[in-house]
Amino acid sequence: MSDTNLSVSELAQRVQDAAADLDGLTRRTPLVTVPFAGIPVRLKLENLQHTGSFKYRGALATLRAAQLSGPVSGCVTYSAGNHGRAVSRAAAAAGVPATVFMPSFALPSKVQLVEKEGATAVLVDGGELATRAHELAEQTDALFIHPFDQASVMAGQGTVGLEILEQIASEEDRPLDVLLVPVGGGGLVSGIASIAAAISPSTRVIPVEPERAGDLHESLAAGRITPWDRAVTATTAADGLRAPAVGELPWSIIEQQVSESLTVSEEAIFAAMGIIAAETNTVVEPSGAVAAAAVLQHAERVAGLSVAAIVSGGNIAVTQFAEQIAVDS
Amino acid sequence: MSDTNLSVSELAQRVQDAAADLDGLTRRTPLVTVPFAGIPVRLKLENLQHTGSFKYRGALATLRAAQLSGPVSGCVTYSAGNHGRAVSRAAAAAGVPATVFMPSFALPSKVQLVEKEGATAVLVDGGELATRAHELAEQTDALFIHPFDQASVMAGQGTVGLEILEQIASEEDRPLDVLLVPVGGGGLVSGIASIAAAISPSTRVIPVEPERAGDLHESLAAGRITPWDRAVTATTAADGLRAPAVGELPWSIIEQQVSESLTVSEEAIFAAMGIIAAETNTVVEPSGAVAAAAVLQHAERVAGLSVAAIVSGGNIAVTQFAEQIAVDS
Repeated sequence: MSDTNLSVSELAQRVQDAAADLDGLTRRTPLVTVPFAGIPVRLKLENLQHTGSFKYRGALATLRAAQLSGPVSGCVTYSAGNHGRAVSRAAAAAGVPATVFMPSFALPSKVQLVEKEGATAVLVDGGELATRAHELAEQTDALFIHPFDQASVMAGQGTVGLEILEQIASEEDRPLDVLLVPVGGGGLVSGIASIAAAISPSTRVIPVEPERAGDLHESLAAGRITPWDRAVTATTAADGLRAPAVGELPWSIIEQQVSESLTVSEEAIFAAMGIIAAETNTVVEPSGAVAAAAVLQHAERVAGLSVAAIVSGGNIAVTQFAEQIAVDS
Repeated sequence: MSDTNLSVSELAQRVQDAAADLDGLTRRTPLVTVPFAGIPVRLKLENLQHTGSFKYRGALATLRAAQLSGPVSGCVTYSAGNHGRAVSRAAAAAGVPATVFMPSFALPSKVQLVEKEGATAVLVDGGELATRAHELAEQTDALFIHPFDQASVMAGQGTVGLEILEQIASEEDRPLDVLLVPVGGGGLVSGIASIAAAISPSTRVIPVEPERAGDLHESLAAGRITPWDRAVTATTAADGLRAPAVGELPWSIIEQQVSESLTVSEEAIFAAMGIIAAETNTVVEPSGAVAAAAVLQHAERVAGLSVAAIVSGGNIAVTQFAEQIAVDS
């Protein structure tokens, strides 16, 4: 990416700018309190965001920032999931044609979601996604929107954290102690860590990953990006968090701002899905339950503290949802 | 009930008072736009209210209004569903012990929900529910909270309509044309009709019922309350709307303020559940999808108008939810 040497304070400012720009265009999603393992957790329901995930924020922020510099004739991305749907809807909102490269194994329902928004879906071999998308962007002078490794995307995703901190400040006397954030490529957690550092420095931003895709956890221990094999990360049900490593730009923020992380089992993820569904009446996908699952599995780490967790998305077939959740019965 | 001769303007004032009193205690639920049969509909997501339905508003409003007049030593109600759960939570919030009479055929999961809130569930024969509840309330000098036929309950439920009208006024230049409201005993629609008459008189409040529980539709045609056989109303999946007739106090408001109503098929209800789930990522129970289903089945009645519909609740086992919704596949 072209945005090298992005400082934490610069990113925090870009989060503030993105929040002002997106006001009224993205949903200010509810922050509700639900007990997990007896601990009250503030859940930020980004599964109620437009297109069903926080990804809409980064996509729209990127498009609108680009339009400030001049007309945008088209945009291009690659994704098998939430980012593709988000770019498609954001492009429609911004009046820009969109092309989404999707792996040939993408579910037909996901392809339909992209096409329903008026975007063009192009199915290619999984290994060619990035190359093909960059090629098209270059050839047609279109805007490339990365799923996470791009400052404008990170800034847009960071608005989730800004909202949480504002919502809590309006209700509570003391700042939030712990903010649990699911991590795939690191766009969300880097944006949030920067804005938290700026406006709520006592809040610990803790990334959470599935145990089966714990590359960031290992990277933090090693002090450098340590990719995992895709054959391993593919085994978690949390399909939005299977990126083999965080991006370089997110990492540059994470390594400065994050000193601890957590991983969770598949069982904890399914149990958290069941609690979220029963207590909030919202549909959550496995990736969206990972942050809250950390409270179930690591209760001793957060007991006695004020805790928030991001429910990042809810794009899942309801039949699959019903099968996966572990409801008390 | 003791509240006879309640005027429309008096009820509207009580809705305003209840809204001021409940501010910060009930959730200001989202109003989102979803297309049904190509018609954009503003959905009020009361399935995201505390206890998963709008019933919490009326229960808490009633308890708090009673506490203004003196200490309340206990409260009593009867319900197999959302009202029982709502009274239980509201009583806990108000610091008042609650007893909920439930029919012996109530689902164990529903009984558990009541007990989980700290209330006492008493299982009795379905025909004895009202008698037993009134007896206990009288013997113990406890507050009886009716599911719908009580002015304070109607006032609390009416705050849903006040919120919708306020949310629309803050976003739109012209008033709402049509507000679709699900009807069982009529507490919700009477409260809403009164506040709409007071602050948005051009808005038509249209009650919607399942075809299999269309007693209000027939009552409006007959000009008097015309109860249906419970054996018939029991056949709709919309179990929250099976009351054989609206209450007398709700009727006194409805007959003045409502001139038309709609009924919907079971198929339209399931189709609406599928659209709501896919577009909002929220869990909705059949009763909660009835109002939106009217747009699917009677599109010609609302085409070209601005339309809102209340999604009244989401208390359903997710496995049942997955079976019932008609998802495009």
